[in-house]
Amino acid sequence: MMISMQRWSKGRVRRDERGSVSPAKARAMFRDGKVTPTSGWCPGYAQANLVAVPADWAYDVLLFCQRNPRPCPVLDVTDPGAVTTWLAPGADLRTDLPSYRVWRDGELSSEPADVMDAWRPDLVAFLLGCSFTFETGLAEAGIPLRHVEQDRNVPMYLTDVECRPAGRMSGPLVVSMRPIPGALVGDAAMISGRMPAVHGAPVHVGDPDGLGIVDLDKPDYGDAVDFRRGDLPVFWACGVTPQAALLASRPPFAITHSPGHMLVTDVTDTEYQVA
Amino acid sequence: MMISMQRWSKGRVRRDERGSVSPAKARAMFRDGKVTPTSGWCPGYAQANLVAVPADWAYDVLLFCQRNPRPCPVLDVTDPGAVTTWLAPGADLRTDLPSYRVWRDGELSSEPADVMDAWRPDLVAFLLGCSFTFETGLAEAGIPLRHVEQDRNVPMYLTDVECRPAGRMSGPLVVSMRPIPGALVGDAAMISGRMPAVHGAPVHVGDPDGLGIVDLDKPDYGDAVDFRRGDLPVFWACGVTPQAALLASRPPFAITHSPGHMLVTDVTDTEYQVA
Repeated sequence: MMISMQRWSKGRVRRDERGSVSPAKARAMFRDGKVTPTSGWCPGYAQANLVAVPADWAYDVLLFCQRNPRPCPVLDVTDPGAVTTWLAPGADLRTDLPSYRVWRDGELSSEPADVMDAWRPDLVAFLLGCSFTFETGLAEAGIPLRHVEQDRNVPMYLTDVECRPAGRMSGPLVVSMRPIPGALVGDAAMISGRMPAVHGAPVHVGDPDGLGIVDLDKPDYGDAVDFRRGDLPVFWACGVTPQAALLASRPPFAITHSPGHMLVTDVTDTEYQVA
Repeated sequence: MMISMQRWSKGRVRRDERGSVSPAKARAMFRDGKVTPTSGWCPGYAQANLVAVPADWAYDVLLFCQRNPRPCPVLDVTDPGAVTTWLAPGADLRTDLPSYRVWRDGELSSEPADVMDAWRPDLVAFLLGCSFTFETGLAEAGIPLRHVEQDRNVPMYLTDVECRPAGRMSGPLVVSMRPIPGALVGDAAMISGRMPAVHGAPVHVGDPDGLGIVDLDKPDYGDAVDFRRGDLPVFWACGVTPQAALLASRPPFAITHSPGHMLVTDVTDTEYQVA
């Protein structure tokens, strides 16, 4: 688990490039080897978590997602052997994310920039909604995103909340955290709450003890971020939750994205906005 | 398929009873043999479609639901052998719906009032959202429900819209239809649209040709209803869609509810209301 999340700090693109390239161009850059977390990339386009498991584990994963829709909102499921998704026509799931994690028997085995060699024809890929998708809406409403301001990956934490198990899959809820000024917490809840397919409203606001989180400065995934005076910690269910379940459930093989290093899709955020 | 849907007209309860009994009491009445469509029963409580298939078909059904969320919004999936659901604690899925359909090799085999004898230990039960759930909201907004006024089951139709296939499961979209005064169609869309877990906003308004429906007076399931002057036909995705897929996909065995004869749950409508 202790593979560094800091590699992305090399080769960072200029902020304007991150915000102005098309999803197809961003994916081409990642395919060509750029490794970076994708928060702030391609505003207005949905991003997705990746979990790929052997077909004989697919039902357990799909049922785990159905039973835990807040952390695991399913946007697409591929047929075995497919390496494409309608979320991003033309993308190759083996190369077009900036960073991957390869899991063997529930242990993190490697963290490569592509998985051309590791991918297997029996893999079924799950694309799950990502909270980066509603960050555009937060920013447009004037809500500061501290991790983007500070050029860091969003911090993510294991909690003491157990997900509903499904077959062989079980594990704790993982959350992402954003410091939000108290006066804007309500707005942030409303804006994200309109997008249940990308984790929806916060699952917790305030005291991290409420989720069993001991130290906000030591996230389990991503980077710690600095608070400004008046900021409250606001926690959203996170699509890294299935990765925690892989650790607990130990399928013989799996491939995921690296936390914060998502598939940038061609689907606009507004597709996932309700009412 | 041509088993009559009219059995429910025997032994109808008084309208006030239908609207005032608790979900647990309604289920007890159905368990004791009452056969009736459940529209108008227990206002304020969600109702659910039932599809139970052998465990080796469960992934195909779950994936079919994931790929077709408008007609097949999954509220719960049981473990093999379980006959209970958290949607209705204390309910027995084999007895507590008013009427069932038993399917063998894709053919409708019988339509009993309980399935104590037919149920198998390898069955996985899917409970899917039902549009009866938003009828309370429609009625409270002053939107007339013609099928309830006319004491009939809601009419349901096969369409020429193909669902996204999943493994061995494929088939056409099934819709329910309610005549709505033109001035209230917008309100009906807004109110139902807030409840995506129970089919959400209409999939079509007006000319039934748009869905390949030839004759509104000849529904494929349920009863024809009379229009009043100024009513438009409004169509919602329907949880009978998986039953049409069973016909097309021919699993060796399945049990479903009879169209319109739902599981009345203990979950309040508002649980499924977004924003």
